[in-house]
This record gives sequence, C-alpha cells and structure tokens, in this order.
Amino acid sequence: MNFIKYLEDRKLLVNNFLEKRTAKKGISRVDEAMAYSLLAGGKRLRPILLMAAADAVGGNGYNYLSVACGLEMIHTYSLIHDDLPVMDNDDYRRGRLTNHKVYGEALALLAGDGLLTLAFEVMLEQKNIAPEVLIETVKEVAMCAGNYGMVGGQVLDLDSEDKQITQAQMRTLHEAKTGALFIAAVRSGARMAGAKSEELLAMTHFAELFGLAFQITDDIMDVESTKEEMGKNSGSDAKLNKSTYVTLYTLEGAKALAEKTLHEALECLEPFGPKAEPLREITKMLYNRKN
Amino acid sequence: MNFIKYLEDRKLLVNNFLEKRTAKKGISRVDEAMAYSLLAGGKRLRPILLMAAADAVGGNGYNYLSVACGLEMIHTYSLIHDDLPVMDNDDYRRGRLTNHKVYGEALALLAGDGLLTLAFEVMLEQKNIAPEVLIETVKEVAMCAGNYGMVGGQVLDLDSEDKQITQAQMRTLHEAKTGALFIAAVRSGARMAGAKSEELLAMTHFAELFGLAFQITDDIMDVESTKEEMGKNSGSDAKLNKSTYVTLYTLEGAKALAEKTLHEALECLEPFGPKAEPLREITKMLYNRKN
Repeated sequence: MNFIKYLEDRKLLVNNFLEKRTAKKGISRVDEAMAYSLLAGGKRLRPILLMAAADAVGGNGYNYLSVACGLEMIHTYSLIHDDLPVMDNDDYRRGRLTNHKVYGEALALLAGDGLLTLAFEVMLEQKNIAPEVLIETVKEVAMCAGNYGMVGGQVLDLDSEDKQITQAQMRTLHEAKTGALFIAAVRSGARMAGAKSEELLAMTHFAELFGLAFQITDDIMDVESTKEEMGKNSGSDAKLNKSTYVTLYTLEGAKALAEKTLHEALECLEPFGPKAEPLREITKMLYNRKN
Repeated sequence: MNFIKYLEDRKLLVNNFLEKRTAKKGISRVDEAMAYSLLAGGKRLRPILLMAAADAVGGNGYNYLSVACGLEMIHTYSLIHDDLPVMDNDDYRRGRLTNHKVYGEALALLAGDGLLTLAFEVMLEQKNIAPEVLIETVKEVAMCAGNYGMVGGQVLDLDSEDKQITQAQMRTLHEAKTGALFIAAVRSGARMAGAKSEELLAMTHFAELFGLAFQITDDIMDVESTKEEMGKNSGSDAKLNKSTYVTLYTLEGAKALAEKTLHEALECLEPFGPKAEPLREITKMLYNRKN
C-alpha cells in the first residue's frame, strides 16, 4: 500500500468537498470568515480517520465524505472559538492569523456558530446509508461534540489553568476535549460501513488510545517544536500555566507513555488484518509528530 | 377552545422536557450554565408554534416534543452569544442577569456551543416519525439556523449598526435573523405531521409573515415598553444606533404595518379551518405584545 498516496487522495477529496460546500455566495460576510478557517489547510485527521475506519471494517471510506467533512467543520469551529481572547487568546493557527485577528471577535464567534450548524446540515446530507443508521451516527457525533464531550472538556481545560491537577483529572479532561471527537470519527466510519458490534467495540478502544497518544504527543510538541513547525505559537501551555503530560510525567515519562499507548492502539487493530493498514499508518504518524 | 390552557399545557410540557434533558450531572460546570439560560422561563414560542402547526394540519403536536425543544435550545444559544460583550453586550435577559454576567464570558461562549450541539442530539432523538422525514426536518432546521439563516442574519445585524439601511435591507436582515427559525418551527411541525405540499407552502407563507410581524412588534416594544415588562433593557436598539421598523417607518407606520402583516398571516391559515385555531390565537397575541 502506498500510504502517502492514500493520505493525499483523501485530503484532496476532503478539501474539494469543503471548498465546494462553502463556495455558494451567502447573505453575509460570515461565509468568508467560515471559509477562511475551514480552508486553511490542516491535516484533515478526523475525516481521514473516519474513512480509514470504514476501510478497516471492509467498507469504502470514500462513501462517507459528508459525515467526514462535518467532523472537520466541528473541529474547525472549536479551534476558532478556542482561539478567541476570552479563551486561549491565540494569534496564529495553521500558520496563519487566527479568525478573530482577521475578522474581529464578533464575526469569529459567529463563524464558529455557522460552522457548527453547517456541520449538522452537511452530515445529514450523507447518502449511501440507511436513514436510521445515519440518525444514530449523527446523534453520536453530537454527543461526542457537546457538553459530555468536547465542549465539556474545554470547560475542564479552562478550569485547570493556573492549577495543579492530577493525572486522572488530566486524562478525563483530554478524553473529553480531544478524545471524544476521535471516537466519533472512528466509530462513525466503522458504523456506517456496517461494523459488527465486536468490531465497533475494538474500534472504540482503538480510538480512545489514539486520542490519548495524540494528546501526549501534542504536549511533547508544545515543548519541543518551533512555531514554524507547529503553525501556531509553541509553548502556549506553559504560558497559560496548564498541566500537561510533560509537566505531570516529565518529558521522558511522556515520551514513554506515548510509545506504550501507541503500541496498545495498534494492538486493537490486529483483528482487522490488512484492511486496517491505513489506520495503522495514521497511528504510526503520531510517533514523529511535528504539527 | 380554551387557548390559555392550550398555551399553559404546552409550555409546561416544554419546560418539563428541557428540565429533564438537562438534569443529568455532567462532567463540567457548563451544564449549569446551559441550564441557567435554558430554564430561565421565556415564552417557548418556537416549540409551541411547531406543535400548533402540527395540530393545524391534523396531527398531534405533542408527538414532536424533541424537535420542538431542540428549536428552543437553538434559540437560547443564540441569545447567550448575542448578549456577549463582543456582540450586543446586554446585562439582562428574561428578567435575569445574562449568562456571561453570571458565569463569565468563556463559560457563556461554551454554554452556547453546548446548547447548539445538544439541540441536534435532542432533535435526532425524535420518535413517532419516519427516519427519512426526521432527517429532512433536522437538515432544514440546520439550514434555517446557519449562515444562510439566523447566523447570517446576525452578521447583517452587526453590519447595520451605526448605519442607515434601506427598508429592503432591513427586511432581508430580519427574515434571516429571526424569521428563519420561525419558518423552521412551523414547517417542521407541519412536515412531521404529514402536511401535503400545498399545506406546507401555505404554512411557509404564514411563518414568513408571522416572523415579520414579530420583528415589527419587537421594535415597537423596544420603544414603548419598560424594562420590567420586557425582562431586558428597553431602548437597546437606539443605544446601538440600529435601524428598526420604528426608525424607518415611524411609530405609527410600524403599527400599521404590523396590523397589515398580522392580517395577512391570518389569511394564510384560512384553508386549515378550526384545527388552526391555536396558531391563529398565537398570531393574535402579537397584537398586544409586552415581551
């Protein structure tokens, strides 16, 4: 398998879909602000995970592009709101000025709202799937993105600034803040592609470990990478005085934990055989993250 | 028909649903902030409109409480974000301090995000309806709430501050900002209750006129009512130097336009006979709005 081509093909597909879906001239300037952040590049990790999970259970990830791109819209809205001055107050993201630095805070707020809303519209446009399965899928995405998932995790994150939290608290925080959307991506892809219940369970476990590894490597990166590599200001955790896997486990400890977690994540994929090769390769990419 | 009882029954039903749906202890403080605004009273106009529209086409509005309450969540999130300092910067809403005055701006932002997300989860839980009809319904709600509807309208509203706009521009603005969600409510109720296509068309026309009348009476109220009657600061349009139906048509002109619009809205309901009585009564309430 040519994994580089696999990634590039899917990234192109996602980018084309997102461009097309935001090209229509709207009634206000909010469309431009939405497109600015949505089309700013990015790894498209969540949509690609969704497609790779569908492939892993014997389906075809290409068939689920609407739900996949909806997830990217949710991810992007969360970044726009997270970067606002009342939140993390970041000036750079993906190598460009953040949304509110270009469009102002009010429009950035509404661009985030617009993307979150559009995400659901787009997901519900998904074809190639029984309507009752689509309903279950999108409902679960909402659950993972909301107050019991991503949004709840962001509040825990706010509350952890300038405060020493425990390793268990930090894990809860990140399971919600970043983990839940990875779970949504992987489970959505697997479910829509017809995963059996034991397959869905293995995929869920994989996604949990993937999310954990993603966060640990994120924290390592925040210490080790430069602004140029990350496309945003590095050292931002320290600036906000946040507990991270590096501060709670030391840098070496965090690296060992990341390695162990990635290994366990790969083990979850064993039952899926060669079909899970793309998902394995995506997981291995976390070993050498620079952004 | 005892209309007072009709309204009270449905309001109670909506309030009970919303309380129950937000009672579960979550992972963070965001749940409390979400419940604060969601359970702050309010007329529950959009859910009641949805139910009354279902009744009007011969269905039973009680059956569609999930979608109805999802609309109230969307409405509430929009108020929370609209009240933020970067937007209208309001301190009072529904007779109480606004969300950010109690919980701070970051949490208010996330409470809005949480409510918007939960709205879709709750709507997709709707029973008593074919899954493909539910998908169409919720997709249309998203369209009405997003950048081509409510969110787009809010941006037009922002852009109209300190600026003279035309009557046509103001109509476009309000059709999107407030009208679209009324259209979503009325069409959702009618569609789920099995409206025929000509009925759906008549309902759409009714909702457009209802939304227009709502906005005109809102602008009249902003001039004529006291803070106590409105539950929020009156005169806020003048404060933000906004064009309104009163500034563009004069107070008397706005009153005449409201009357004419309400009359036309009621005409749209004629084909529905006695079943549309609740919808007629709700419309007539706009003649004497105090909040």
